Amino acid sequence: MILNNKISIFYFINLIKLDIIVIILYALISGMLIHLTPFKGVDISLSVSAMIGTLVSLLLAFKTSQSYERWWEARIIWGGIVNDSRSLLRILKQYIPESPESAEDLEQFARRHIIWCYSLGETLRRTEFSVKVSEYLKKHDLTSDNIPNFLLNKHSEDLSRFQNKYSLNPNIMVHIDSVVARLNDSMGRCERIKNTVFPKSYSLLIRSIIYVFLTIFPFGLAHMAPAAEISITILIPILFISIERTAMILQDPFENRPTDTPVSKISQTIERNLEELLALPQAEQEDAMRGYYIL
Amino acid sequence: MILNNKISIFYFINLIKLDIIVIILYALISGMLIHLTPFKGVDISLSVSAMIGTLVSLLLAFKTSQSYERWWEARIIWGGIVNDSRSLLRILKQYIPESPESAEDLEQFARRHIIWCYSLGETLRRTEFSVKVSEYLKKHDLTSDNIPNFLLNKHSEDLSRFQNKYSLNPNIMVHIDSVVARLNDSMGRCERIKNTVFPKSYSLLIRSIIYVFLTIFPFGLAHMAPAAEISITILIPILFISIERTAMILQDPFENRPTDTPVSKISQTIERNLEELLALPQAEQEDAMRGYYIL
Amino acid sequence: MILNNKISIFYFINLIKLDIIVIILYALISGMLIHLTPFKGVDISLSVSAMIGTLVSLLLAFKTSQSYERWWEARIIWGGIVNDSRSLLRILKQYIPESPESAEDLEQFARRHIIWCYSLGETLRRTEFSVKVSEYLKKHDLTSDNIPNFLLNKHSEDLSRFQNKYSLNPNIMVHIDSVVARLNDSMGRCERIKNTVFPKSYSLLIRSIIYVFLTIFPFGLAHMAPAAEISITILIPILFISIERTAMILQDPFENRPTDTPVSKISQTIERNLEELLALPQAEQEDAMRGYYIL
Amino acid sequence: MILNNKISIFYFINLIKLDIIVIILYALISGMLIHLTPFKGVDISLSVSAMIGTLVSLLLAFKTSQSYERWWEARIIWGGIVNDSRSLLRILKQYIPESPESAEDLEQFARRHIIWCYSLGETLRRTEFSVKVSEYLKKHDLTSDNIPNFLLNKHSEDLSRFQNKYSLNPNIMVHIDSVVARLNDSMGRCERIKNTVFPKSYSLLIRSIIYVFLTIFPFGLAHMAPAAEISITILIPILFISIERTAMILQDPFENRPTDTPVSKISQTIERNLEELLALPQAEQEDAMRGYYIL
Amino acid sequence: MILNNKISIFYFINLIKLDIIVIILYALISGMLIHLTPFKGVDISLSVSAMIGTLVSLLLAFKTSQSYERWWEARIIWGGIVNDSRSLLRILKQYIPESPESAEDLEQFARRHIIWCYSLGETLRRTEFSVKVSEYLKKHDLTSDNIPNFLLNKHSEDLSRFQNKYSLNPNIMVHIDSVVARLNDSMGRCERIKNTVFPKSYSLLIRSIIYVFLTIFPFGLAHMAPAAEISITILIPILFISIERTAMILQDPFENRPTDTPVSKISQTIERNLEELLALPQAEQEDAMRGYYIL
Repeated sequence: MILNNKISIFYFINLIKLDIIVIILYALISGMLIHLTPFKGVDISLSVSAMIGTLVSLLLAFKTSQSYERWWEARIIWGGIVNDSRSLLRILKQYIPESPESAEDLEQFARRHIIWCYSLGETLRRTEFSVKVSEYLKKHDLTSDNIPNFLLNKHSEDLSRFQNKYSLNPNIMVHIDSVVARLNDSMGRCERIKNTVFPKSYSLLIRSIIYVFLTIFPFGLAHMAPAAEISITILIPILFISIERTAMILQDPFENRPTDTPVSKISQTIERNLEELLALPQAEQEDAMRGYYIL
Repeated sequence: MILNNKISIFYFINLIKLDIIVIILYALISGMLIHLTPFKGVDISLSVSAMIGTLVSLLLAFKTSQSYERWWEARIIWGGIVNDSRSLLRILKQYIPESPESAEDLEQFARRHIIWCYSLGETLRRTEFSVKVSEYLKKHDLTSDNIPNFLLNKHSEDLSRFQNKYSLNPNIMVHIDSVVARLNDSMGRCERIKNTVFPKSYSLLIRSIIYVFLTIFPFGLAHMAPAAEISITILIPILFISIERTAMILQDPFENRPTDTPVSKISQTIERNLEELLALPQAEQEDAMRGYYIL
Repeated sequence: MILNNKISIFYFINLIKLDIIVIILYALISGMLIHLTPFKGVDISLSVSAMIGTLVSLLLAFKTSQSYERWWEARIIWGGIVNDSRSLLRILKQYIPESPESAEDLEQFARRHIIWCYSLGETLRRTEFSVKVSEYLKKHDLTSDNIPNFLLNKHSEDLSRFQNKYSLNPNIMVHIDSVVARLNDSMGRCERIKNTVFPKSYSLLIRSIIYVFLTIFPFGLAHMAPAAEISITILIPILFISIERTAMILQDPFENRPTDTPVSKISQTIERNLEELLALPQAEQEDAMRGYYIL
Repeated sequence: MILNNKISIFYFINLIKLDIIVIILYALISGMLIHLTPFKGVDISLSVSAMIGTLVSLLLAFKTSQSYERWWEARIIWGGIVNDSRSLLRILKQYIPESPESAEDLEQFARRHIIWCYSLGETLRRTEFSVKVSEYLKKHDLTSDNIPNFLLNKHSEDLSRFQNKYSLNPNIMVHIDSVVARLNDSMGRCERIKNTVFPKSYSLLIRSIIYVFLTIFPFGLAHMAPAAEISITILIPILFISIERTAMILQDPFENRPTDTPVSKISQTIERNLEELLALPQAEQEDAMRGYYIL
Repeated sequence: MILNNKISIFYFINLIKLDIIVIILYALISGMLIHLTPFKGVDISLSVSAMIGTLVSLLLAFKTSQSYERWWEARIIWGGIVNDSRSLLRILKQYIPESPESAEDLEQFARRHIIWCYSLGETLRRTEFSVKVSEYLKKHDLTSDNIPNFLLNKHSEDLSRFQNKYSLNPNIMVHIDSVVARLNDSMGRCERIKNTVFPKSYSLLIRSIIYVFLTIFPFGLAHMAPAAEISITILIPILFISIERTAMILQDPFENRPTDTPVSKISQTIERNLEELLALPQAEQEDAMRGYYIL
């Protein structure tokens, strides 16, 4: 399972098309001013542009790095969800005495847990619930503003029931609860990443500096041939904008986009692992691809 | 809930208006000296300014990054408060046997916890307590220098009472206490961020270097047309100052400013989650907006 | 045991040979255009290339740093596996009363654990299982999609059995389980690193910028002697590409390559440590080298 | 409590006065050589200085960042001490049954803990113990090389006594011990920061490169007017030195200096919090200012 | 105890003497080519060297930073060993009932623990065991490939014995075991740092780029006076190499070198602390200095 997301070049160009248009227009207009009018005399040394260029490059490099951290953090959280899901069911199976009834209880618990994974991913992406999830919710007659949180509450009720039914030792209960608490934390951390936009003022500032750069850049290229001057005036700012956008895409990893954390794929893995652990029949996996991207 | 804070451009310009005035005045005066007096001869190579420019850019990029870390840390702490608040009540509900009396106890506990969240946010912002909080405090006759810490002490007294009343196992008690300890840590971490200013000497140094840059910069632009020279002399230092200020705003995330951690919104979320968990009637939420910014 | 991997220069050159060919071809063609045709007039100031050069250098430096973090994280995980493997068996030995039967149980457990280490490494590298592992699996008749996860499930079953057989205290059980959970986490973290490619859009962007640099670079060197111009045009982009590739190799540490995490060596260390702890006869260590690299 | 340390400019200038003198002397001598002797012919391109300048700027930016991390780590540790001190007494109060005798025991414990905080801060700063601490030590007849560590040993003896006296459950004891262990860790982490100087070779290297820069810098400014040349030769190296020193001050946060971690203020906060928790009479707080800085 | 390692300048120069010789030779040869032969015409713009210079500076700054992290991590680990050693004995003393026999048991345990510290440091440095350690091993007739790990196994056997002898509660046992597990982790983390060389390909790349820089650098200085040209050609690459080597030294903190983690000093501190805690007679401390450096 190599999650090698094929990002369409067109998708990306579409994303920055407005910037491209503005940059090309400005390059053409400034080019005409410089080469055809007395504006030619206005010479702003390339060193000044280079200074702003260095500043922008640094800010972009740091921003890309911060965006990458967010993206990687999202991936780590979902990695943790895989680990804790496996641990949770493994511990339950280890301490609950085997019997047809307990097998039934464990299966119910595992099925709900699998739905928790899918529904968390779908909630984060703000897509409609998949057939699998919505059927489960309908069948068990569950409604809430925050379905994943609600399902964890149900887990908690079950655990309370298991404690009495299977006389689980309080030590074991605390151990189990702490795994549930970690899953709860992972859910909260996903919500945090989803709900916290990168500070607006910071993003705005970087974009502004790129446009300041664009404004003065052509006046340092007046000595060049017009065609070359205009091409270069277009090229460099587009590089800056591309980096800025790439960073922006990375920093929001639950947006149903090609660089997303592959929440559906990961949920399927969890489903398969839990089914193997409990020796359940493999539920036919609904094809996780909906809409445009295979994640 | 996309927390997309609309920062007013005017708010920001207002913040740096003094710097803008100084920079413009200096640019005009130095411009006159350079273009109208024998100072013209004083040529300080643009390469020297570029050197300082690189230095300033690097320091600003790192400072912005450090400020971002602080801002993100504040957000992580409040994310942790959400998670631990949910866990705390979920565990209590799981282990305290159901009865009308315990339901009453849990509600009291949850209400106090919700007030803890609001009061922590308001204490950090140094605003007056909202109606919701101050009514609660008046009703229960609570006063302290440090209300959030005091409320945690009350939590602790309740837990001690619950242990006896509902014969909670020591293991479970330790488990509950450790969640309270994490909430206590989150509170302390917020206080740390609030009370620790970014090292003054460091901030001062960066500002000094920006002004050194401003001082020598125009003497490298003597060959340019006066209008362009003066514009550029104004532009670049203002870029530097803007970045410095943006970083400064980011690094203090509890100042009742647009880039703040949205403590009221988060408290409301916690309120809703706890009410759903305990099946309480939804308290009408006081509109969290007070003063200027919707956070 | 100094894990000083001797990377063959030829291996590396082979990796970037396509880029080298493209760069040389372009350098020759652009060289001819510049020195033999009217293209000579097209002068793109070296400052413009320098600007892109600074941008690329920054992005590469950050990317190398991020790749190094991934590589180091992989090493940390396997260091953790060593520590937890030692702890796991040490605790088991400490709490299980000595007897010929328990010695037998511990040996079985340790043998399975050693196989877990080897099989995890081999699974991550997508190589076929070594003789040692496949013989073990055949002998115990074990099959699964995910052998390491399956072996941990078996550990869990054994622990459940040990609890009854040796009347282990629930506290001790939880302590043991938490070590198993950490091993489970390490396994999951390896899978995460293995399965998550560095964001494609980011990698693609850096490569694109390097090629943009290549495109305009020679036009800033038109004043140089042709031989020198062409050499330099080849040299700098190859430096950039080399850094980019070095980063790429670092960031995937389970690919059966010279910079890999030395999973076989580490597994052997664990094997030796556990055998000493339980005073087992030293199993003859299958030579860990298979294929090309000694890791 | 805004800890806005007013650093005296004079303090700082005093710190770098030797460097300033050396730099000014060299600038004057090299200025005379360049402008009055045949050395004028020695021209070392400003680009070479710029290269070293970039190198120095980068190293300084990273070093400042690392120093900031140390400073912030020290602040985090003391933040943790606040949190754990509150937790420790809160838990003790929660589990020890109320009685006049236990109130007495708790007060003794709290008083010792407060002394622990003050003495830790004073030990780290290598100042003499304050009246408060030395009176406590005299009264209880305590002597040790390492007073804070010794007080923690006393805590441990008390806890052992409390366990028997108030029949505390082992679970609760472990919970309490783990808070003490965290305080022990915080103490050790402070010692580590205090006792580990920043690697000497690294610091020396940066200073050497600054002086190499100083040496060749004026020979790139030969074309400038003497007064301007000498001023610039002085200015830039002083900027570098200032940054280096600011970093040096930051990286040692327990030196009784203006940028120190405010250990006395934090100890006072802990004192107030514990007194409120246990409803003790507020001890008159010795004025924390001794010597020169209010920290 | 200020660990201010006085690194001998000569030690360092000795380390890079080969590079210095190569650089000087190349500078002389290229200088002759440039100033005495038609090679004078080969002009490679200083901007090209500057580009490589920026690239090298960035990579070196990041590498130095990564090396510093490793060095700091090693120091943190040993700081943790101090903390956990104190905690371990403090807890044992707290829970084991006082008696002459238990005092004897604790002393034996502490003595072995002190030897563990020394032997770990000496194993990491690959030096022969000191008299203190080897006498202990001989006296107790202990042999193993991995002495520190073996001593921890002995700790574990003792703890098992203590549990029965002093009827320690399982909760307390788990608490003690977890401290031992942390010491085990610290040991493993030291081994990881010791055994994992910085990725070879990465180091090699940086050195190669420095030599590429050296190769083309003099051809951009052709306009300078020969003596100045040659000096500068020597100076800058030596700066780069010095930084690279300083980083290399930092990144391996257990090599019996001046920048090492001061493992002997730290072991002595632990020895003194444990002796105070248990009121043992102070063992005369073998002078920790052996060989050349006082660490």
